[in-house]
Amino acid sequence: MAEQIGQPTFVLVRPQMGENIGAAARAMWNFGLSGMRIVAPRDGWPNPAAMALASGAGRLLDAAMLCDDLAGALADRTYTYATTARSRDLTKPVLTPEAAMAEARDRIAAGERVAVLFGPERAGLENEDIARANAIVSVPVNPDFPSLNLAQCVLLTAYEWRRATNETVARTVEMAGADWAEGHEIEHLARHYEERLEEAGFFFPEHKAPAMKVNLRNLWSRMPLTRVDVQMLHGILRQMVRWKERDGK
Amino acid sequence: MAEQIGQPTFVLVRPQMGENIGAAARAMWNFGLSGMRIVAPRDGWPNPAAMALASGAGRLLDAAMLCDDLAGALADRTYTYATTARSRDLTKPVLTPEAAMAEARDRIAAGERVAVLFGPERAGLENEDIARANAIVSVPVNPDFPSLNLAQCVLLTAYEWRRATNETVARTVEMAGADWAEGHEIEHLARHYEERLEEAGFFFPEHKAPAMKVNLRNLWSRMPLTRVDVQMLHGILRQMVRWKERDGK
Repeated sequence: MAEQIGQPTFVLVRPQMGENIGAAARAMWNFGLSGMRIVAPRDGWPNPAAMALASGAGRLLDAAMLCDDLAGALADRTYTYATTARSRDLTKPVLTPEAAMAEARDRIAAGERVAVLFGPERAGLENEDIARANAIVSVPVNPDFPSLNLAQCVLLTAYEWRRATNETVARTVEMAGADWAEGHEIEHLARHYEERLEEAGFFFPEHKAPAMKVNLRNLWSRMPLTRVDVQMLHGILRQMVRWKERDGK
Repeated sequence: MAEQIGQPTFVLVRPQMGENIGAAARAMWNFGLSGMRIVAPRDGWPNPAAMALASGAGRLLDAAMLCDDLAGALADRTYTYATTARSRDLTKPVLTPEAAMAEARDRIAAGERVAVLFGPERAGLENEDIARANAIVSVPVNPDFPSLNLAQCVLLTAYEWRRATNETVARTVEMAGADWAEGHEIEHLARHYEERLEEAGFFFPEHKAPAMKVNLRNLWSRMPLTRVDVQMLHGILRQMVRWKERDGK
């Protein structure tokens, strides 16, 4: 749980509320990040409110490096990003969280030691802090309501770190133990319905019957059916027939 | 601020704490989403704690549709995503937030009306709720610590909606009123330093001088210099010369 080689270090600069430090630790650990540094926290350190809120991520706070000033926190870093909402009258690269974390991944792979700065809750980072950073990270928020809090900003940045470093399949299907039905099973199902519905007089009037049959076929092939689904659909139809026969007696 | 055509509707299903409803409203509005529906909130509706926390996003709560049950909330929707952390023994597509919001954008562009479900804080959505959804959205969290709260889940989904629908330049440079220096300005700067440093006896020993000059040239071209930077670097050198001359008197 100490600072990981191969990950960026998140630096909380002069954080105010202990609760927010704890929430930031949780947000980092949600996405597998563990290296935190804390610069001059307003309420001293350790902070019981931070520990209370961190719950499962408390070990990040135990291992966090406490620093008197930002220069100390960055002493061993080779590249630093500063997160900020507003533009700052400083000539500097500005990246989305996605681009920044992809770049950070590449820098770290090349042996760099990367930090990401997060400012105090009320005012954010000072220009003096930002002047120590190599680039700015800015979350593309709604310009009418750009009010992300500290833990939210940490969350989105950590989320983008994980996206940049973990291959996640974008779209899959949870099968819950089921198998997809095969073509012959769909064919059998389609015939079963077509035959019974023919007997039941469903395809009426006769000149519309061919189109109705095509539509029914199309319905089966449009649906992503499992074997269990197919069995259930057979069962429904058999039961309807049984019911009819019982009543017909 | 009413439900927007062209956006997904976020449905909070049986939310518990008013504070979390307010935080969810803020998270939506941070990324420009405004259509919220609330199903059977535990503490009734309206909820003063929700309003207090929503602050700048309170209008979302004023406009939110209150529903007795999930069927009512989805009555006019054509496609529904359910957010859930765990796998649920239901055969269903599972998407990352990124893939889901890109798909939602395309569905909405094609005229569909899309909902995204968020479960109650403690237990998340019930299987009965999820069975009403067409697909599952699952945030790729750290499997050792998958504890996202309601507002965080809303935040990440809303963030991905904005990413899917707003072109943001991934990497740019904030110029702060500055212009990049042009080639002739860099050339002039390089000569200025080379000449003064030659006079100062910097390029020593002589057999290393050519390599030192190449390295100095390379430093100027490696740095992304603005016109203001170039003027400052000229000024530094001139001032050093002036200082020397003052002391030499």
